[in-house]
Amino acid sequence: MLALTILGNNSAIPAFDRNPTAQVLQTQEESYLVDCGEGTQMQMAKYKVRRSKINHIFISHLHGDHYFGLIGVITSMSLLGRTQDLHVHGPAELEEIIGLQLKVADTHLSFALYFHPLKEEGLILNGKKMTVHCFPVQHRIPCWGFLFREKKNPRKLDPDRARIYEIPAAFYEKLQQGEDYITKKGTIVPNEEVTTASTLPKSYAYCADTIYDESLAEKVGGVDLLYHEATYLKDLPERAAARFHSTTIQAAEIAKKAGAKRLLIGHFSSKYESLDEFLAEASAVFENTELALQGVCYTI
Amino acid sequence: MLALTILGNNSAIPAFDRNPTAQVLQTQEESYLVDCGEGTQMQMAKYKVRRSKINHIFISHLHGDHYFGLIGVITSMSLLGRTQDLHVHGPAELEEIIGLQLKVADTHLSFALYFHPLKEEGLILNGKKMTVHCFPVQHRIPCWGFLFREKKNPRKLDPDRARIYEIPAAFYEKLQQGEDYITKKGTIVPNEEVTTASTLPKSYAYCADTIYDESLAEKVGGVDLLYHEATYLKDLPERAAARFHSTTIQAAEIAKKAGAKRLLIGHFSSKYESLDEFLAEASAVFENTELALQGVCYTI
Repeated sequence: MLALTILGNNSAIPAFDRNPTAQVLQTQEESYLVDCGEGTQMQMAKYKVRRSKINHIFISHLHGDHYFGLIGVITSMSLLGRTQDLHVHGPAELEEIIGLQLKVADTHLSFALYFHPLKEEGLILNGKKMTVHCFPVQHRIPCWGFLFREKKNPRKLDPDRARIYEIPAAFYEKLQQGEDYITKKGTIVPNEEVTTASTLPKSYAYCADTIYDESLAEKVGGVDLLYHEATYLKDLPERAAARFHSTTIQAAEIAKKAGAKRLLIGHFSSKYESLDEFLAEASAVFENTELALQGVCYTI
Repeated sequence: MLALTILGNNSAIPAFDRNPTAQVLQTQEESYLVDCGEGTQMQMAKYKVRRSKINHIFISHLHGDHYFGLIGVITSMSLLGRTQDLHVHGPAELEEIIGLQLKVADTHLSFALYFHPLKEEGLILNGKKMTVHCFPVQHRIPCWGFLFREKKNPRKLDPDRARIYEIPAAFYEKLQQGEDYITKKGTIVPNEEVTTASTLPKSYAYCADTIYDESLAEKVGGVDLLYHEATYLKDLPERAAARFHSTTIQAAEIAKKAGAKRLLIGHFSSKYESLDEFLAEASAVFENTELALQGVCYTI
């Protein structure tokens, strides 16, 4: 299972108690911070997000509402005495910006900080239980989306049944990977006799800030949960395009074309106080739409 | 009259809903932002601080809890279409940091932004109704305090009485400055006959982050309101000194030596949830002490 907590859902200027973009994707083992607008560390404290579980931070692009909170998260981790490595994946200039801010404060971090500049579409993290791919999206400045995919879970072994078939323990890992067992006498023990299927691996795609771009649908095809920005309501497609953003309808169209199971929309413009229309408009095109609301944890 | 609103009163890491340091000093005509920790723009929105009245921002030093919110304030002002000039007074490296962040976002501000690097003790702003002086304080990295002094207010003219003495209107400004009038016949009209005293000019001193330093008392002598940091309670003078901070008692001692009328203490360490002891300890040494509390407006 994955659990996505929204820390900020607004675009550009904070408004109506909506913070700039930040999200935390949690697995059983660790958490991934996706974008980090100003105030992210306060939002993490408010919603009890454990900083110690975050080893990787992904920054989509260098508009301030997506990264001004990063330096605060990093320095606070150090003040709290973190020792684990921290990895930041984002545009190359991030390293210079953070480095300069640490230098002028004469700050020596309590942990090792590694920058991984995003250069081309593809795999950027191959973890024990998760892969992360990045893909370019179309925005006013270079901008990246991220696709998180759980690795296939091992099948669940029933040790009692394995013992009945006298399968040696050394073969258990292969059973969990789905292999059949062949006894010394040449009899086949079908895998299903001793294991049961695990939950299917889940996936989450974060499309960052983007103009309406149909090619995105292919990149995130079949994803369990798709986050797509919807900065404006459907009556402002020209403004959306001029600013390299999307409308409700456009976000929903991408979800439909992608065959996504669910759609989460966010990055709402500060011009809107109520978000009701966002949900109504997007749901009319793609039924399984939800609003990205701060403090809410969406399980996948 | 001056009015000081506290936007953040915590040190280093935000905690217990206390934000990092930021204050707004307001006069009838304009406002001065003093330090600008992360989340300052949200705090300004929360406490209805008008951004348009801010033309000068003063940054004491480049520890993040005093300036990480500056880039957000600047870019949001631009997104809101500000056209007035904005002046930032602070350590020289600020210009490089802000410049780099604007560059990578391809941001062109809607207004002119001027940096005024702090170099030596003295006058840094000579406004129509206010002067601002800076003075170095002792911290781990270069750090500055600021002294705001209202200019002497002109005396209030009673036009009816001025007419009785047949004083020409061209002389009214001199009357407001306190001069006597001498008639053509050589008779002296004492100033007090036609004017009354205005309110006394007020002053506010912001001592930023500092180790206990008696020489500060002289720099802020007789100030109406003194802000002095009190990061720790009185039982931790060694920790305070090691980190170039002060205790409650030390802040109060400076206020007493300075002959300040009132003391405001802030920059509380994140290790303390309750602030009651801060007030009790400082008040025992300097009675007119108040806690710097977020959202509270202290009139001077």
